[in-house]
Amino acid sequence: MFLPKKTLEEKIRSFLEEDLGQGDITTSLLIPDGTIVEGEMIAKEEGIIAGIEEATTFLESQSFQIEALISDGSRVKEKTGVLKIIGDARTLLSTERTLLNILTRMSGIATTTYRLVEKVRNAGFKTRVACTRKVAPGLSYLDKKAVMLGGGDTHRLHLDDLVLIKDNHLAVVGDIQKAVKQARETVSFSKKIEIEVSTVEEALEAIKSGADIVMLDNFSPKEIRETMRMLKKNRLRDKVLVEASGGINEQNLLEYVATEVDIVSLGEITNSTKALDISLEIKKVKKQMI
Amino acid sequence: MFLPKKTLEEKIRSFLEEDLGQGDITTSLLIPDGTIVEGEMIAKEEGIIAGIEEATTFLESQSFQIEALISDGSRVKEKTGVLKIIGDARTLLSTERTLLNILTRMSGIATTTYRLVEKVRNAGFKTRVACTRKVAPGLSYLDKKAVMLGGGDTHRLHLDDLVLIKDNHLAVVGDIQKAVKQARETVSFSKKIEIEVSTVEEALEAIKSGADIVMLDNFSPKEIRETMRMLKKNRLRDKVLVEASGGINEQNLLEYVATEVDIVSLGEITNSTKALDISLEIKKVKKQMI
Amino acid sequence: MFLPKKTLEEKIRSFLEEDLGQGDITTSLLIPDGTIVEGEMIAKEEGIIAGIEEATTFLESQSFQIEALISDGSRVKEKTGVLKIIGDARTLLSTERTLLNILTRMSGIATTTYRLVEKVRNAGFKTRVACTRKVAPGLSYLDKKAVMLGGGDTHRLHLDDLVLIKDNHLAVVGDIQKAVKQARETVSFSKKIEIEVSTVEEALEAIKSGADIVMLDNFSPKEIRETMRMLKKNRLRDKVLVEASGGINEQNLLEYVATEVDIVSLGEITNSTKALDISLEIKKVKKQMI
Amino acid sequence: MFLPKKTLEEKIRSFLEEDLGQGDITTSLLIPDGTIVEGEMIAKEEGIIAGIEEATTFLESQSFQIEALISDGSRVKEKTGVLKIIGDARTLLSTERTLLNILTRMSGIATTTYRLVEKVRNAGFKTRVACTRKVAPGLSYLDKKAVMLGGGDTHRLHLDDLVLIKDNHLAVVGDIQKAVKQARETVSFSKKIEIEVSTVEEALEAIKSGADIVMLDNFSPKEIRETMRMLKKNRLRDKVLVEASGGINEQNLLEYVATEVDIVSLGEITNSTKALDISLEIKKVKKQMI
Amino acid sequence: MFLPKKTLEEKIRSFLEEDLGQGDITTSLLIPDGTIVEGEMIAKEEGIIAGIEEATTFLESQSFQIEALISDGSRVKEKTGVLKIIGDARTLLSTERTLLNILTRMSGIATTTYRLVEKVRNAGFKTRVACTRKVAPGLSYLDKKAVMLGGGDTHRLHLDDLVLIKDNHLAVVGDIQKAVKQARETVSFSKKIEIEVSTVEEALEAIKSGADIVMLDNFSPKEIRETMRMLKKNRLRDKVLVEASGGINEQNLLEYVATEVDIVSLGEITNSTKALDISLEIKKVKKQMI
Amino acid sequence: MFLPKKTLEEKIRSFLEEDLGQGDITTSLLIPDGTIVEGEMIAKEEGIIAGIEEATTFLESQSFQIEALISDGSRVKEKTGVLKIIGDARTLLSTERTLLNILTRMSGIATTTYRLVEKVRNAGFKTRVACTRKVAPGLSYLDKKAVMLGGGDTHRLHLDDLVLIKDNHLAVVGDIQKAVKQARETVSFSKKIEIEVSTVEEALEAIKSGADIVMLDNFSPKEIRETMRMLKKNRLRDKVLVEASGGINEQNLLEYVATEVDIVSLGEITNSTKALDISLEIKKVKKQMI
Repeated sequence: MFLPKKTLEEKIRSFLEEDLGQGDITTSLLIPDGTIVEGEMIAKEEGIIAGIEEATTFLESQSFQIEALISDGSRVKEKTGVLKIIGDARTLLSTERTLLNILTRMSGIATTTYRLVEKVRNAGFKTRVACTRKVAPGLSYLDKKAVMLGGGDTHRLHLDDLVLIKDNHLAVVGDIQKAVKQARETVSFSKKIEIEVSTVEEALEAIKSGADIVMLDNFSPKEIRETMRMLKKNRLRDKVLVEASGGINEQNLLEYVATEVDIVSLGEITNSTKALDISLEIKKVKKQMI
Repeated sequence: MFLPKKTLEEKIRSFLEEDLGQGDITTSLLIPDGTIVEGEMIAKEEGIIAGIEEATTFLESQSFQIEALISDGSRVKEKTGVLKIIGDARTLLSTERTLLNILTRMSGIATTTYRLVEKVRNAGFKTRVACTRKVAPGLSYLDKKAVMLGGGDTHRLHLDDLVLIKDNHLAVVGDIQKAVKQARETVSFSKKIEIEVSTVEEALEAIKSGADIVMLDNFSPKEIRETMRMLKKNRLRDKVLVEASGGINEQNLLEYVATEVDIVSLGEITNSTKALDISLEIKKVKKQMI
Repeated sequence: MFLPKKTLEEKIRSFLEEDLGQGDITTSLLIPDGTIVEGEMIAKEEGIIAGIEEATTFLESQSFQIEALISDGSRVKEKTGVLKIIGDARTLLSTERTLLNILTRMSGIATTTYRLVEKVRNAGFKTRVACTRKVAPGLSYLDKKAVMLGGGDTHRLHLDDLVLIKDNHLAVVGDIQKAVKQARETVSFSKKIEIEVSTVEEALEAIKSGADIVMLDNFSPKEIRETMRMLKKNRLRDKVLVEASGGINEQNLLEYVATEVDIVSLGEITNSTKALDISLEIKKVKKQMI
Repeated sequence: MFLPKKTLEEKIRSFLEEDLGQGDITTSLLIPDGTIVEGEMIAKEEGIIAGIEEATTFLESQSFQIEALISDGSRVKEKTGVLKIIGDARTLLSTERTLLNILTRMSGIATTTYRLVEKVRNAGFKTRVACTRKVAPGLSYLDKKAVMLGGGDTHRLHLDDLVLIKDNHLAVVGDIQKAVKQARETVSFSKKIEIEVSTVEEALEAIKSGADIVMLDNFSPKEIRETMRMLKKNRLRDKVLVEASGGINEQNLLEYVATEVDIVSLGEITNSTKALDISLEIKKVKKQMI
Repeated sequence: MFLPKKTLEEKIRSFLEEDLGQGDITTSLLIPDGTIVEGEMIAKEEGIIAGIEEATTFLESQSFQIEALISDGSRVKEKTGVLKIIGDARTLLSTERTLLNILTRMSGIATTTYRLVEKVRNAGFKTRVACTRKVAPGLSYLDKKAVMLGGGDTHRLHLDDLVLIKDNHLAVVGDIQKAVKQARETVSFSKKIEIEVSTVEEALEAIKSGADIVMLDNFSPKEIRETMRMLKKNRLRDKVLVEASGGINEQNLLEYVATEVDIVSLGEITNSTKALDISLEIKKVKKQMI
Repeated sequence: MFLPKKTLEEKIRSFLEEDLGQGDITTSLLIPDGTIVEGEMIAKEEGIIAGIEEATTFLESQSFQIEALISDGSRVKEKTGVLKIIGDARTLLSTERTLLNILTRMSGIATTTYRLVEKVRNAGFKTRVACTRKVAPGLSYLDKKAVMLGGGDTHRLHLDDLVLIKDNHLAVVGDIQKAVKQARETVSFSKKIEIEVSTVEEALEAIKSGADIVMLDNFSPKEIRETMRMLKKNRLRDKVLVEASGGINEQNLLEYVATEVDIVSLGEITNSTKALDISLEIKKVKKQMI
């Protein structure tokens, strides 16, 4: 998910715009033009940091001197400095909140993802922990990148990068076999085909029809195990990736993982987030940049 | 926070863009052009609904027939229909997720806000429950409108609509009295002036200097009570609004409210959200719109 | 009204776009690539300069060396150098007119504002001289900032930063008391409430209902004085700011100010502007930048 | 200057955005959703109306019923209805000011232009009265269209539609003959070439070099007459259009026109405008659209 | 590649903007407002039509009555009507060229693609004929959709939808095995991994390392056959898709196809296009729409 | 067609966006952050290079060190280095294709144009070879600039820079004389007027009516000669520019040129392009920029 600096900078500028309106009146009233400050972004609680690339790209484009004390994806203890910043006080004070909103959201998502992934790894599994498209509106890039930095799987990035046949598609098309076959014939060779199913029978039909990935939607762990048993029995297990989705949370995660599916996906990683507490402290005030 | 339909539609279209990429390949492979479906958005859990105006504005602009079963700000029980939708299947299936991401985030925020406000009202207080600028990046409009629909106070909408002198401003300016006075003289008569303070003494100084609102930052309930006592003693209570902020959460909310401040504000209303579970069910498939 | 440089630069770039079209053909035909010139923007007539920040931000982003000979808000005599510019000739010649259009409009507005404010101050009054939302379409930022630099009051910056109940709102709502009360209960504590009235009785009703500001619309000075008398009699004068609006111009300004209202507002400050004459003179031509 | 409706609508929407911010809070607090009003835009003073196409295009896109009582470019007496509007009250009240800002600016420019053109016609001349590129930043389309509706000449619409060699180009290039020749050889056959000169000699040189149009910059009427005499003497008068520019205003206009130049151009038409007074009156309030 | 109508309409509007500038002066000078015309877009030569959806979406959004005489992807003979159009003359004349530029480019690409695909099918092969990312700048959507309508394979739609390790990546990474392995471990399960190789040995190494697709870059048909032979010998043929790329054109196409690769890709499908001749004929002129 | 660097950079960034999507996943998986590479863009075949300004402007804005080995409009032999590039590997690899798409398209168009122009010059004629508005959608700037660099005439750049009355306008207006007269009276003095005619009689009528340019549409060389003869006979030849258009291609070009028209225009220069083969080779890899 690499974006050239100018493109990333533009994305962040667009977030700022909504907050700035006709400009920061407090800052322009109180902070003398030309004031230089030294500040530090500090993580107030333990977690995984994400958003450093976004913050530094924006700040460097505004002529700040930046020293990243930590790299994206790193784990920090509470009260750890994350980013040292030297530059124009007016610019820093008027963009502080938006930059922190990016960092705290991304770090929150990365931290949750990391905790889930560790739980799976510590239990001895290699199952992938994936997010879904249940992101904040317009924040797919930030949210998915944070999942990646937390060690999770980003799943689809766009509606154009994976054929994913869901229940509502089947409500129109009617027939799993026909749907998979039709997709396979027409779609580019560069795409995988995934299909969402709601019974063991549908899972078998989907795989026989040539799906690359099958999503077991709202299956109980018991139903998943039964499905996996049937796949092996039909010698289909190696031909397909199996994703479990629906009803999975931090508490019951290992029950799902234990079924030996390849992927578990959770909407709540990105739609029920908890911000990581990070704040900016002004350390020094200089009148003029050297 | 009224926006004309075209403006709102454009905002939602911009959210869609990130998801659509070069277009929905699943839908174009499987759903015949001209297919009309009837669907319903259904709340799967109890809560306050927000985002109906946003969803209907967008869908109507795409020639859907819409029937809102509930109005924004209403409370629903689990398994309640929210919105009936009749129209083009391809458009609905390719925009479903983004529209649900708007509805589930806004409804989640409205539900949390409502729960906090009810807690305060049920305890017999009129204290305002406000959010802060700790929103998702670029989603200030959606997040603040959801707070409003949940009965909360939106606080600042922009950096240009309230002078709010924070700790980092004071780190540069140095002097509360000077800061308030300077702001008062220069800023438009149409703006209020708020200042963030960290001790009782600062609070008194701020109010004497003419601040309209004083924010007690990270004060314990005990410290707040002491401050309120001093205000009354100095006959300053009626001249100012008092906001408590920092460290407040659902658990300790009433302790803060009991101090008789005018406003309590919580960053977590908008930065640590829990989506309300809402989904789209296709009910009928017609081949051609009548 | 502080905007970070990148945001301001983008705003100015958008103004340029309309003029550039597919590019400046005169410049590309005649001016050799790599030519460096030294130029100076010169005020041809006396006035208050505004727009220096806008011009320098844009020019610096294009690698020009800039020396501001005057700061925004300063008064200049005729034939005064305002800005020294060294840099790429093609860029300067193709952006000259747009930059001058910004400077001459903003300086024109600042000059008019300053003249009005001085008239009030010289007559011994502290009354605020405010502009309105009658700006050039899309130029609210430039116009209001120019008013501020001329010493005027910017009034509302957006439809979201002040509740201002106007005659057309009352034509729908019907009742002043109900309107103010409804606004007070629902709007954020961070906003003031202003109401436009057309009779003395309405003014009293508005203030009793809790308006923070009352706008006397198209009142004659005599009617205003009568209103002020009634306010004092009812001990309401200290509870409210009073704005006079409608029919005020440079000639009759002092008659309105003498009524002791707090604010006078004039649409013509921003909608009937006179550009200050400023032009660019090329002083030296160098072939290659050192 | 015809733009398809969608393009024009988008342009107007962009002007609205700056004013709307996070939405109109007054309207959303006070005006019930679904309220329909009937209003009329009324010219309060005599003038030429411009901006009807812009206002109706925007309002129709928002489902308003519109009846234009006057067409663009028409002359109205004071207190004349311009536009009847029936539709959503919230949308009308939140866009009223921006639409009026468009109409009042455009009508103001059209009125001034018309007055100048009439003065020339009444004195028996056919001289074209042109504006320049001294428009409000980003408002070239609105300003130039208003000039056209007032009967004036729009001059260049972009930096790409006429080669106009100005003093600052000559400061770099040095030589009129070389500049015109170089332009003629390289530029598309579809473009005219104009050159700004400051002496009679330069005028002759420019025309001999093949310029299509020569601009006499800051010539006194006497100097212009001398130039015209020399042109005739050299049998060059029919080969070129002559434009007088610089120092021309409403007072001295006829002195310049009397010199028999083809075009007089005035920066003040677009940079020192006086808004025509137009306002919106709500006539009726209905609760629900039929 | 389905896009909702509003999104598609916006894309086309952005193409129009570059052409319109300050508006169509010819049309506004000559065509009376309110004139309605009936026109027909007619293919002047044989080919495959593409771009109907784009043209109709835009025209319908501008209130035109449209009758598509042919559907996207259909083959037409010379002088075949493609689209009947009734609506506003000014809008049609000012957008005609841009709409035709879309249709003629897309139809040209679809026609070429179809001819290549037919050549392969007629020779008895099922090989996919794919385009590459060598599209016109910013026209990936139009170009790839045209390829799809011509029966070709769209290949990657974005830099985010397939891992494609090219020679320049390997110039940095150095090692095929390491590159594939690293990609496989980190990238989402929803993505395929393709690698570009330049020798038979590299091809084998890539496939053994787990690549899903191997691209034989600039291999001669003979070298490809040798590679295919080695794949079969190593029992790797079924584990991978093989794409031949580089140096393939319409003349030598069947030589490459005969090697039994799965995909042949040609840059020239989209970067060396020949427009299909389509033009608009005005059939009738009505003064007022009924 | 000069654009300031920031404006040009923005245009190129917009082309990149379509390709980048959520970011380049291959590059972010494989290329270590901070890797510096040295690369060279190399023309693989003979031709005229165009697009250097575009590529360098973008790359320099991303902090690359650039050495242009050739200037825009130069002729190169096959295997000639065009541009040396040192900078961030990730940025280069993710933007390489878009930059090459700009260079190969522009160079292809410049090469074709140059070949046509040389053919005309070598046959001893000075006739201008012009392109039309048949460009790729949204690429008018790139396409027309490439034509200019190849020595061709750009013709109209916008719908606002030349009055060009085409057959479809006449289908509505009906009368050549009326159309030209109406245009002449109303349009700015800064514009030329061209009219498309289909018979010798129409050509004469157009010129007598005052058209500056007449376009002989789909005339055979014989018909053109007859027209030229009639123009001379009527002493109209010197009053007008004559453009031949329709049915002209590289093969028959000289037959048209030999008629002594002033301009020949060909749609295929820009709508049936052949990319010039240019590619990027990574020469060296450094780990860290010095």
